[in-house]
Amino acid sequence: MTVSIGYLGPKGTFTKLAVDTAFNGENKQSFDTIPECIDAVEEEKIDIGVVPLENAIEGTVQLTVDYLIHQVRLPVAAEIVVPIQQHLLVHPEFTGGLIDIREVHSHSHAIAQCHQYIHQHLPDASIRYTTSTGKAAEIAGEKNTPIAAIGNRLAASEYGLRIMKENIHDYPNNHTRFLVLTKNKDIVKIKHTSILDKTTVLITLPSDKAGALHQVLSAFAWRKMNLSKIESRPMKTGLGHYFFIIDVNQPYDDVLFPGVKGELEALGCNVTILGTYPVYQMNI
Amino acid sequence: MTVSIGYLGPKGTFTKLAVDTAFNGENKQSFDTIPECIDAVEEEKIDIGVVPLENAIEGTVQLTVDYLIHQVRLPVAAEIVVPIQQHLLVHPEFTGGLIDIREVHSHSHAIAQCHQYIHQHLPDASIRYTTSTGKAAEIAGEKNTPIAAIGNRLAASEYGLRIMKENIHDYPNNHTRFLVLTKNKDIVKIKHTSILDKTTVLITLPSDKAGALHQVLSAFAWRKMNLSKIESRPMKTGLGHYFFIIDVNQPYDDVLFPGVKGELEALGCNVTILGTYPVYQMNI
Repeated sequence: MTVSIGYLGPKGTFTKLAVDTAFNGENKQSFDTIPECIDAVEEEKIDIGVVPLENAIEGTVQLTVDYLIHQVRLPVAAEIVVPIQQHLLVHPEFTGGLIDIREVHSHSHAIAQCHQYIHQHLPDASIRYTTSTGKAAEIAGEKNTPIAAIGNRLAASEYGLRIMKENIHDYPNNHTRFLVLTKNKDIVKIKHTSILDKTTVLITLPSDKAGALHQVLSAFAWRKMNLSKIESRPMKTGLGHYFFIIDVNQPYDDVLFPGVKGELEALGCNVTILGTYPVYQMNI
Repeated sequence: MTVSIGYLGPKGTFTKLAVDTAFNGENKQSFDTIPECIDAVEEEKIDIGVVPLENAIEGTVQLTVDYLIHQVRLPVAAEIVVPIQQHLLVHPEFTGGLIDIREVHSHSHAIAQCHQYIHQHLPDASIRYTTSTGKAAEIAGEKNTPIAAIGNRLAASEYGLRIMKENIHDYPNNHTRFLVLTKNKDIVKIKHTSILDKTTVLITLPSDKAGALHQVLSAFAWRKMNLSKIESRPMKTGLGHYFFIIDVNQPYDDVLFPGVKGELEALGCNVTILGTYPVYQMNI
């Protein structure tokens, strides 16, 4: 049986790049929104869903996190980390230089990520916004015009463009994170070695009192459990109510995590283990 | 002299809505990206800039936070909190019902926020993505067709549309936050009463060691300083290095904050006060 993988599309997006880098030739299906992709996994229309968690282009972490927490609770099978690399893409027959480029097309977030580069090297080009980096690549590929697109390597190959200038993003060492969601972890075969195992925990506090978070972290600290990420997000019940999402840099075990959970529940917190899963760092 | 206010545009966006709700008839100027708006304040082309900090439509908190921290440090003069309300907008002469709507246009994040509503009430309409909710409203307003847009009240009035159905977003009680940036706090006149004063602190840890964050929070906890938000963000120096942004629910003072700063610096942390400012809660 072929495993079917859904992702936030269209083709040429960073999510598709993550999926292609992580998985072999399974049946891959594009979804227009994060909730549609998550729903399809929940309704078993697809086996695996890949959605962005920290991604400056296709979506916000908030939408993924909120939908997973408030609407559809699905186990996280893995995390995929991919470097952000934005390139300046042109029609393959375009022979001009940077100075000849009249228009630069891309998603507003990609334009913003290359803000300094555009300011210095393409000050006279006019900026046109598209709904995705893939759409921009499609426009640049239509015919030989002085129109450039900003997008990734996959967008270049999908739309037959030439990479005129590599790595024009302002920040080096920037990464995006994607979650692999599935009801059946056994089918997830990622063609890399994981760099660590992580456990993500959702904690709600009994009230918004001073030092509550400090008390929560004490339960991890005295057990020497290392937290790589902590984020507070508003509950949907009104301003001032927060829950916390904490990434612990170790796999779930039967001693430490139940110990943390027991202690925090005694303090009136709610503790939910959202997943324990390997993290894969991709080089593309 | 008229104060000039820049915002993340185009007209009809949630940022523009926040600006119109908070400020009287100052000179208002639209910017296409968050960095352009921040740069204009830095270069004193405008007096005040308003950019989203937590906003599911126009931008991600990451872009604003990263640009403010890594590129341009500007003082925060105020925070504006606005409820997210998405409406179904149609041409004023459209007389059909929900069942007659053939297309729904909006930004992909607005579509995602109304995912359940569309699924239940507009299952047969085809979805079209636009670069902003304002652009969708513009398309729906062109002529009397069975095309609806999803957007806010301001988009309806800017493009002369009728609100066919109010509040179609899936989550009630959802809010967005905007930062008011300026070099001259005295010119910021917001026509509301602030609900609290807040101080935002940026802390970098000496190394990624277990319990480091716990130790940082201790400095606040034993002083009974209430934290309303904490977020870890990757440094741009590679994976595994994080800094923390902490919102403290009280104004800066000359005893407690210097005490925290001194203690944390003794532990090897870097502590920067990003701003101390009032928070305004808008009802629109």
